[in-house]
Amino acid sequence: MSEPIKKGNIAQAPTPQNTPASVSGSYLKNAPLPTIPSTIKEDDELHKKLLANPAILSMIEGKLNTLVGTDSGYVKALPPKIKNRLYGLKALQQTQFKLEAEFQMELLNLEKKYHEKHLPIFQKRKRIVLGSLEPTTEEIEEGQALMGEEEDEEEEEQDEAKSEIDETLKDVKGIPSFWLTAMENLGPIAELITDRDSEALNHLIDIRLEYFDALGFRLVFEFEENEYFTNKQLVKTYYYQKELGYSRDFVYDHAEGCDIKWKDNDHNLTISVEKRKQRNKHTKQVRTIEKLTAVDSFFNFFTPPQPTKPEEEEEEKDEEEDSEEEEEEEGALEEKLQLDYEIGELFKDKLIPRAIDWFTGYALEYEYDEGEEEEFDDDEEDSEEEESDDADGSDSDDSDADEDAGAAKAQPAECKQQ
Amino acid sequence: MSEPIKKGNIAQAPTPQNTPASVSGSYLKNAPLPTIPSTIKEDDELHKKLLANPAILSMIEGKLNTLVGTDSGYVKALPPKIKNRLYGLKALQQTQFKLEAEFQMELLNLEKKYHEKHLPIFQKRKRIVLGSLEPTTEEIEEGQALMGEEEDEEEEEQDEAKSEIDETLKDVKGIPSFWLTAMENLGPIAELITDRDSEALNHLIDIRLEYFDALGFRLVFEFEENEYFTNKQLVKTYYYQKELGYSRDFVYDHAEGCDIKWKDNDHNLTISVEKRKQRNKHTKQVRTIEKLTAVDSFFNFFTPPQPTKPEEEEEEKDEEEDSEEEEEEEGALEEKLQLDYEIGELFKDKLIPRAIDWFTGYALEYEYDEGEEEEFDDDEEDSEEEESDDADGSDSDDSDADEDAGAAKAQPAECKQQ
Repeated sequence: MSEPIKKGNIAQAPTPQNTPASVSGSYLKNAPLPTIPSTIKEDDELHKKLLANPAILSMIEGKLNTLVGTDSGYVKALPPKIKNRLYGLKALQQTQFKLEAEFQMELLNLEKKYHEKHLPIFQKRKRIVLGSLEPTTEEIEEGQALMGEEEDEEEEEQDEAKSEIDETLKDVKGIPSFWLTAMENLGPIAELITDRDSEALNHLIDIRLEYFDALGFRLVFEFEENEYFTNKQLVKTYYYQKELGYSRDFVYDHAEGCDIKWKDNDHNLTISVEKRKQRNKHTKQVRTIEKLTAVDSFFNFFTPPQPTKPEEEEEEKDEEEDSEEEEEEEGALEEKLQLDYEIGELFKDKLIPRAIDWFTGYALEYEYDEGEEEEFDDDEEDSEEEESDDADGSDSDDSDADEDAGAAKAQPAECKQQ
Repeated sequence: MSEPIKKGNIAQAPTPQNTPASVSGSYLKNAPLPTIPSTIKEDDELHKKLLANPAILSMIEGKLNTLVGTDSGYVKALPPKIKNRLYGLKALQQTQFKLEAEFQMELLNLEKKYHEKHLPIFQKRKRIVLGSLEPTTEEIEEGQALMGEEEDEEEEEQDEAKSEIDETLKDVKGIPSFWLTAMENLGPIAELITDRDSEALNHLIDIRLEYFDALGFRLVFEFEENEYFTNKQLVKTYYYQKELGYSRDFVYDHAEGCDIKWKDNDHNLTISVEKRKQRNKHTKQVRTIEKLTAVDSFFNFFTPPQPTKPEEEEEEKDEEEDSEEEEEEEGALEEKLQLDYEIGELFKDKLIPRAIDWFTGYALEYEYDEGEEEEFDDDEEDSEEEESDDADGSDSDDSDADEDAGAAKAQPAECKQQ
């Protein structure tokens, strides 16, 4: 299993409260300076042990100031013999990394192997959703028993009301809006879906996971024919770095999307089109100009943010010096990348394996145990409004580009999740 | 890898904001009642699709009230044919569970296999920590190069100061206080360690992970001879449930500790001893009474909280009706269990594999990426004081038990983490 959101080697430096100063403090809390406390003197054995403790000794010898405040003061202050042993341990730990990488590769292969074993199940699911296969009586009874446990008993009351609907719906094939409904129940994914998006996502007929030879995974969104785009499927591919992260997991390298072949600008869900009439001053001819603005849309998921390459970063730094702005930009990019990887994992680890439970909402019962999902939020409408305000402000440079199809590719000013 | 803290089937019920009402809302947000909106009428194809959508249809037919407010209203309101397909999918999902359990068993075996491969490395580490093996020149140089990257360059300044210490320490064997220092750097573990504990933990010479035939793992804390207890090792064993959790991971069943054979009450770190003189009214003889009170201590880790068994819970509920208090108690137990499992995972997944980096503090740089560790906190002293206030208040029933060695086994009123 890969790390959910960690990315590259962006590690936060330890803060004064959590590192050595306080450590050597608690490590040494029984040895107030400058003399050995009386409670310790009472116990000869302990006394000897404490004197054998190099950090305590160095404290006793008045070296406190050389330790506290420096980053790993207590390590630096240790005598060479002990430091050498620490170096030895560090080298020894390095030999673990190879084993850990081997383990992760075997784990990935194990995941692939079980993914293969799952395929017939997912293919059958697809056929039921599309209506090309009906479940057997046994399956229906089993599922009913399983779902019965999850439901209240008030069901029968509604039977009468339903029969009217039944009549109208007797020819409906499969389970309409299956994937859209499942996605609408998974908070962080639902937040990406606009009203316009959901019309297009009604044509989503399957979402599946694929592995490939390189390190990573691929999400394939299969669509039936629709009025928005001509693609039969939209694909998002996530790549891992070759080197494992410090916690022995794969770390994301980058993601790749795909070109969506929108039928026309009016059906391109990632832009808004404003039509204006313009009269040529000389010819007096009137022509219509389309002003395209990048807007929030789930379909921006297929134009993922790209991490800055280390070299690029260096170059940029050399050129300009307004580093505060840059850092802010980097922070925003960091957040976008993190969200993009998170959404990928939600599809891979939650939505695809438990789609029926996301459709019914049953899977939600298991969401709030873990704390990390606390940001789940349903006020999409609100955040969308906020969003457009933002876009008018800081990031409107691109939005005047007339008839610029490229605008569709520009990322909206900020992601809704913020 | 097992789930960090989830336990049993304690699932939080979905709240009105995140479940069906809002779902059917967004699912249907393009179909205001009671007529089909004009924007949709414009597109015949879309119109047809929307009519094929059973939820929209049922809305149009005025069934809104039967849907909103009920827990999975939109599912219940679906016509039998579609519900049957949902049942079919539910039954189909059930067939995944067997595969998922197989996968987790293979994963556990993979972890065991790689644990075996790691053993020589950890055994060598132990010997270096104890001083029975010195690292080679190559290892020292490699480790130095590795650590050099992590350190500042200010090192040389301190060389002079160190040489004095060196003289005093030339006979020190191994790396004194290695495990204690590593533990002191790992926040949630450090919070459990009191001043008195750290004296005993100076005698901790190895921590290692062991697997066994059942589902779970074992943490073995090896001690050199010391003045506190006679055990050569203290063991904590974690057991997983046979059934996987909803997220396809093992779920903790319970943990078992071990009896610590304290040399005497004064050295028992899990109790505080207050000596009082008492004169017999009749014989006028004076005798000393020891009042024992359970106190916070890392060593309570070996007397883990026990989950309530489902049957017990039932019985209790039948007997007494003051359910509010009970719920509070259950909540406190839940938190204790969660912390106990979390601490076990920290030893297993973080401290043991990266002990040298926890000793130096380097591992801390990787802690703050993940958000979950935000509670890291160093004001142990403070929280301890709060703690004793608490103990005086609500939970003092047991604390008067004179000469009751069993008091050592009683859990302190509350865990420090709260």
